[in-house]
Amino acid sequence: MIRLKGLPESMNNLVREFGRMPGVGPKSARRLAFFILKQSKDDSKRLAECVLKLKETVRFCALCNNLSDAEFCDICANEKRDKSVLCVVEKPSDIISIEKMGEFTGLYHVLLGALSPLDGVGPEDLKIESLVKRIKHDRVKEVIIATDSNTEGETTALYLVRILKPLGVKVYRIGYGMPVGADLEYADQATLYKAFEGKREI
Amino acid sequence: MIRLKGLPESMNNLVREFGRMPGVGPKSARRLAFFILKQSKDDSKRLAECVLKLKETVRFCALCNNLSDAEFCDICANEKRDKSVLCVVEKPSDIISIEKMGEFTGLYHVLLGALSPLDGVGPEDLKIESLVKRIKHDRVKEVIIATDSNTEGETTALYLVRILKPLGVKVYRIGYGMPVGADLEYADQATLYKAFEGKREI
Repeated sequence: MIRLKGLPESMNNLVREFGRMPGVGPKSARRLAFFILKQSKDDSKRLAECVLKLKETVRFCALCNNLSDAEFCDICANEKRDKSVLCVVEKPSDIISIEKMGEFTGLYHVLLGALSPLDGVGPEDLKIESLVKRIKHDRVKEVIIATDSNTEGETTALYLVRILKPLGVKVYRIGYGMPVGADLEYADQATLYKAFEGKREI
Repeated sequence: MIRLKGLPESMNNLVREFGRMPGVGPKSARRLAFFILKQSKDDSKRLAECVLKLKETVRFCALCNNLSDAEFCDICANEKRDKSVLCVVEKPSDIISIEKMGEFTGLYHVLLGALSPLDGVGPEDLKIESLVKRIKHDRVKEVIIATDSNTEGETTALYLVRILKPLGVKVYRIGYGMPVGADLEYADQATLYKAFEGKREI
């Protein structure tokens, strides 16, 4: 633990807490703490409440496993979305990128991970069973697999094809435009648009 | 306000709060929010408490204007520090850098700003009166002016020399080694050591 001399205990505590966050070094942590010190009491209160409320209210959508404040997420609850198309992603943050692109009108299914035998992640650790159930019961006609284009993502995609094809559903993999090895979460919207436009049946 | 589609309201709120912080862009804010979501409830609670406690407990030291949890800061309350030497700085965060260097054993005096006629900051806006009082009453023999080496800092230093010289105290300005235009807060320890070693009477 770093204890900065010349700083009161309460400042040091906050610097330490900020320093635990990803991408926040010691100097950034100090800068953030000084920012908190300078902002109004109301602003501090709001930040603290947001931090606390997040852990209390956020859960997984009962249908697609996206993050949600209610039983079903905004997307699953939206009557206008096309229920016959499912886009399968690894994690909730991937949905943000695809929603930003704005061209996908179907629903999602979040696997909450990707197959990784080396890390001991098998099919039973992912939300594949509920995906199969949804396809069987919800009249899904098309599944677009949008897992990352790294080893784990490709492995997961291949596994899914094997599982989903026998169900009589059309299975697509996004492709054209996605740079290999890149993380879907940080893809730009144009690339993502290309990837959705150039989906190919597999 | 940015509202990310596909994210629950409580996540969006926290992303917005983090996004208000200095040096935190939209993607960093999202990353931090996901970090908070993944960490334990206890960790979230501790962060929220640190944020709230900071505003409640931190005030200015009654003697030197450093940040403090009590009436006097750790440095002023330390009996081992040399009370005959004062180092004058612009802001509390400057003290951290000098303390890290570890070679200065005197006390500090924080001006809480620097002279800046263009911004309407005059001598009466800085803690100069209390500095003069301390020098008169606390048997101070040496004053080391460690304001920044930019226009405002140099102006302040020159003003202080004019005010302090008649009091019969030795006045120094740190100098050798500090790169011109740099901010004292982010100086490295070796440069700061040079600056303290090469102080020259003015």
